[in-house]
Amino acid sequence: MPVSAPVITASILAIGDELLSGRTKDKNIAWLAEKLNECGIDLREVRIIPDNEEAIIAAINALRRAYTYVFTSGGIGPTHDDITAESVAKAFQRPCIFDPAAEALLSAYYRAQKQDLTAGRRLMARMPAGAELIANTISGAPGFKIENCFIMAGVPQVFQAMVQEVLPLLKKSAPMQSITIPCPFGESRISKKLGDLQKAFPHIAIGSYPQICDKDGPRWRLDIVLRGRDKAVLSHAAAAVEAMLADFSAEAGA
Amino acid sequence: MPVSAPVITASILAIGDELLSGRTKDKNIAWLAEKLNECGIDLREVRIIPDNEEAIIAAINALRRAYTYVFTSGGIGPTHDDITAESVAKAFQRPCIFDPAAEALLSAYYRAQKQDLTAGRRLMARMPAGAELIANTISGAPGFKIENCFIMAGVPQVFQAMVQEVLPLLKKSAPMQSITIPCPFGESRISKKLGDLQKAFPHIAIGSYPQICDKDGPRWRLDIVLRGRDKAVLSHAAAAVEAMLADFSAEAGA
Repeated sequence: MPVSAPVITASILAIGDELLSGRTKDKNIAWLAEKLNECGIDLREVRIIPDNEEAIIAAINALRRAYTYVFTSGGIGPTHDDITAESVAKAFQRPCIFDPAAEALLSAYYRAQKQDLTAGRRLMARMPAGAELIANTISGAPGFKIENCFIMAGVPQVFQAMVQEVLPLLKKSAPMQSITIPCPFGESRISKKLGDLQKAFPHIAIGSYPQICDKDGPRWRLDIVLRGRDKAVLSHAAAAVEAMLADFSAEAGA
Repeated sequence: MPVSAPVITASILAIGDELLSGRTKDKNIAWLAEKLNECGIDLREVRIIPDNEEAIIAAINALRRAYTYVFTSGGIGPTHDDITAESVAKAFQRPCIFDPAAEALLSAYYRAQKQDLTAGRRLMARMPAGAELIANTISGAPGFKIENCFIMAGVPQVFQAMVQEVLPLLKKSAPMQSITIPCPFGESRISKKLGDLQKAFPHIAIGSYPQICDKDGPRWRLDIVLRGRDKAVLSHAAAAVEAMLADFSAEAGA
């Protein structure tokens, strides 16, 4: 879908064995998808991969080259299965160091709780050389930004807090507007005319989304969704879809 | 995590603009992840991509070469934004045809409802030459299998019905067993010893999963999860983790 302004794109990389085993249901992807949409940033790809160095390196390198931004979740804690920081450093061919700013931050965080920065806790200061910290207002241990990649925690409350720190740093564009039109006909019935309308409005993405509603017995319902950044063009396209449906209704009633 | 039997691997490719815009929350990935886990099939990667030909071709080709199986959801309806069948055909460099078996099936399906196989409905018979049908017990229009790829609908009820048809066709292995041990200590406290145990039990995947429980006010809880296919080894590893925690408790009490 072409637009006149440069499009800002993003990908999400969720990292964790537990997401793939079915043990943990991811809560971060859909949440961030909505936030990005509000910022006018086009989420173009999501990947979920295990805590595996080779997989992380390959995904980070593919995504950071393809999209404006990459947001990751998971694997930045202090245990042996937390290999995200180390793997991201390798992807960028930078050493993974104990970041002095992160150590100072952790040290202050635990001091305020009258606790020590133990060797175990200090592990959470590891990150690629030259990374910038992302504050963690929930539990101290920071995420980090390296070039166009934002490396964040997997625990949803911490992930969300880190995203709130990151959002002001991002380039934004006019948010995508959408109009949803319930359609009383089946997809097969409208497909030809709807395809013609898509051709007539190339700057509007027209999608048709059938679903089965289980309330009061299963029945199909269809929504036609129009999305675009130009409100006037979007309204014109929606009016054209409404007119098409009115024609079908007149036919059906004739 | 090495195992003695050949490991059967899988990936899921969820296709649809609506999944990336935040409009629709995917319900298929977590559901299939659990099914695959029960079959002893290792889900290694999930991708969510838009209804975009180039993206679909690239993802299908990457995933089908990397994993035993690829399962896709979405984009096989009759409208202009349903481009999965066409794109998969291109990925396999095969023509996209009106499959005669699919046409016969759709024709019979609509005849039973005293309806016609209209041109719009016939579009749901398009698939790569040589594909095999996956029955749709919910709404007629079939999915298809091409080599190691299973191309299925996005509507959750239809997706699930198609997966039920597909499961008996898959190679399976001993299901992954898991043991979850609640841990009363923080990750930083146990990280060193837990890492040592991971080294001692290389055939068991040991993960530690912190979460914030919001019931009765926010508080952290930590689960240690052990996963493996050999029940005896898994029990030994779990006993070793329990012993480690007992040592910590004794220390804390001393």
